[in-house]
Amino acid sequence: MTENSKNVEDNLGSGIACPLPLTDYKNVLLAHGGGGKLTHQLIHKIFLSQFQNKWLDSLHDGAILPMNGVRLAFTTDSYVIDPIFFPGGDIGQLAVNGTVNDLAMCGAKPLYLSAAFVIEEGLAMEELWRVVVSMQAAAKEAGVFLVTGDTKVVDRGKGDKLFINTSGIGVVAEKVNIDPKRAVVGDQIIVNGPIALHGIAIMSVREGIQFGTKIESDTAPLNGLVHRMLEVCSDIHVLRDPTRGGVASSLNEIAESANKGIMIVEDVIPIDEEVRGACEILGLDPLYVANEGKLLAFVPAEKAQAVLAAMRAHPQGKESVIIGEVVDDHRGKVLMRSRIGGSRVVDMLWGEQLPRIC
Amino acid sequence: MTENSKNVEDNLGSGIACPLPLTDYKNVLLAHGGGGKLTHQLIHKIFLSQFQNKWLDSLHDGAILPMNGVRLAFTTDSYVIDPIFFPGGDIGQLAVNGTVNDLAMCGAKPLYLSAAFVIEEGLAMEELWRVVVSMQAAAKEAGVFLVTGDTKVVDRGKGDKLFINTSGIGVVAEKVNIDPKRAVVGDQIIVNGPIALHGIAIMSVREGIQFGTKIESDTAPLNGLVHRMLEVCSDIHVLRDPTRGGVASSLNEIAESANKGIMIVEDVIPIDEEVRGACEILGLDPLYVANEGKLLAFVPAEKAQAVLAAMRAHPQGKESVIIGEVVDDHRGKVLMRSRIGGSRVVDMLWGEQLPRIC
Repeated sequence: MTENSKNVEDNLGSGIACPLPLTDYKNVLLAHGGGGKLTHQLIHKIFLSQFQNKWLDSLHDGAILPMNGVRLAFTTDSYVIDPIFFPGGDIGQLAVNGTVNDLAMCGAKPLYLSAAFVIEEGLAMEELWRVVVSMQAAAKEAGVFLVTGDTKVVDRGKGDKLFINTSGIGVVAEKVNIDPKRAVVGDQIIVNGPIALHGIAIMSVREGIQFGTKIESDTAPLNGLVHRMLEVCSDIHVLRDPTRGGVASSLNEIAESANKGIMIVEDVIPIDEEVRGACEILGLDPLYVANEGKLLAFVPAEKAQAVLAAMRAHPQGKESVIIGEVVDDHRGKVLMRSRIGGSRVVDMLWGEQLPRIC
Repeated sequence: MTENSKNVEDNLGSGIACPLPLTDYKNVLLAHGGGGKLTHQLIHKIFLSQFQNKWLDSLHDGAILPMNGVRLAFTTDSYVIDPIFFPGGDIGQLAVNGTVNDLAMCGAKPLYLSAAFVIEEGLAMEELWRVVVSMQAAAKEAGVFLVTGDTKVVDRGKGDKLFINTSGIGVVAEKVNIDPKRAVVGDQIIVNGPIALHGIAIMSVREGIQFGTKIESDTAPLNGLVHRMLEVCSDIHVLRDPTRGGVASSLNEIAESANKGIMIVEDVIPIDEEVRGACEILGLDPLYVANEGKLLAFVPAEKAQAVLAAMRAHPQGKESVIIGEVVDDHRGKVLMRSRIGGSRVVDMLWGEQLPRIC
């Protein structure tokens, strides 16, 4: 018995050795939190290998739970973004919108949120207050209630100003069944507007770079938009908000879950000129840059135009566009047809482009 | 308009100024997280003044929400305990038991938990693994499922090894109505065993003090015990787990919520000899030291003996004892009758005795 497994045994007191699964890393790296391949390895090898139950699904934004005849959606997210105030928003607004959106991506109507604060000693009361005011405004906009909370304070140098966890509860409407495994050949992939705004807004603050036009985070609640989309087509197959790791990582996760191929078209992917320019300066690929107010929808082909029209009529979806489709080829992989006609694999990143982006 | 309120206005973009409420502190102190008066001020002035809704109740361990004919309990807690491994447990076990207990203190049967990890870069994979194994063992023991999660990694020096948030969902049985406001004159106050074990176990590790007998944390799931108690008396008025701030803080909160007096009897409060000795050495009052596997129950007088007997027959309640009662005197305050016959006020602490105890 190794020393390691013996420790675990002592700790459990169960007499059953439970050795650490083989991992390539002895220590957690920043990249393990980047939303790419390393995050997936960590989740699969460490968390999923222990927390096994039928409701746990690593590849969805939340769990769907039976509760007295309704299906409850339940999700959690910690927000560790640096800086806590940024162009277009702050950590409080992000924490509300992010969890509202995770519920919406399960096809649920978000209802109740919790808010748990881990505050570094010394945070200005004024800053905490601004964050709290912003959370309440975001909750009001999204139509949810912050119903329970927790506050912890850690010593100076053992945190970073403020971390917020929000967990959320919502109810999934009848007939709705959103699941990354449900992507089928022919599904049209819609995005609700220009990508990469959030990540570039954060990066510009961190690097102290001023672009011609001020680039702001796209943080926004998407539950209203999703509600409208499901009214038009209750059989939307997949919804996903491409946050950490961007559009490329989300599409790869879905391709892998469904074991289908995905083909996207470079020319039609909406990217603002300023963002494209900033990405070139910073050496970033916009497909991997985080979004906060964007969603990817996989819609049955015959309903795609109707859903697209409904999205364009909604404030959060004015610039919606079909960027690709599900194909019966290169299963589990995402390909992009380029401007000059060829196509290339859009792989999942190993680590992260931008740490602590949400 | 002050500069402060202007900032908030800009931030909200709502055109409504929302100035910081008057607080005595310009910055957050470690003591704001101690569970005493400063924590209460922070919660009331900053959080509750913004998050106003009928479900939010600062003085309960969770929110009770209507959901398709059942009452859902929803609670959240972040665990920032230092060190993450300690005699009798670790942060993972604590995170599961703590949230299970918060649900149980609402009179709910705990069902589903979320788990969100904020990991400091560099944490040994082996340590993370031990925590996760321990969480799963605790979930199994409590009969709950870890159904959804999140992982973030922060740079070295911006966290402290590992913070865990668990949020939980449970269902409150019909007829059960636990509420600190429901304490009435004559209610007998029962504790399920010796107090102050958790806090002293943590303190002994931090200070590197060895006591004669090893003092271990009392972390344990209390949902089984509560279930049994409610079978005997569905009309238990108040349940509370005296964690941060200890028995004294919990009783003060309840006295204040119910606007009733509380009288406890020093001689009958169960404290192990080793713990009493350690408290003397460390200069701590055991009434203010954190517990993790203890509860305080306010039971109608005529049912007190039956509930006590049921508790003593349960593994988590063998050493249960009545420590006091609710009185029609000194409203909102807690008094303790001492060994020599007099009585003294047991006030709420201003800050904390032991930071980062849970």
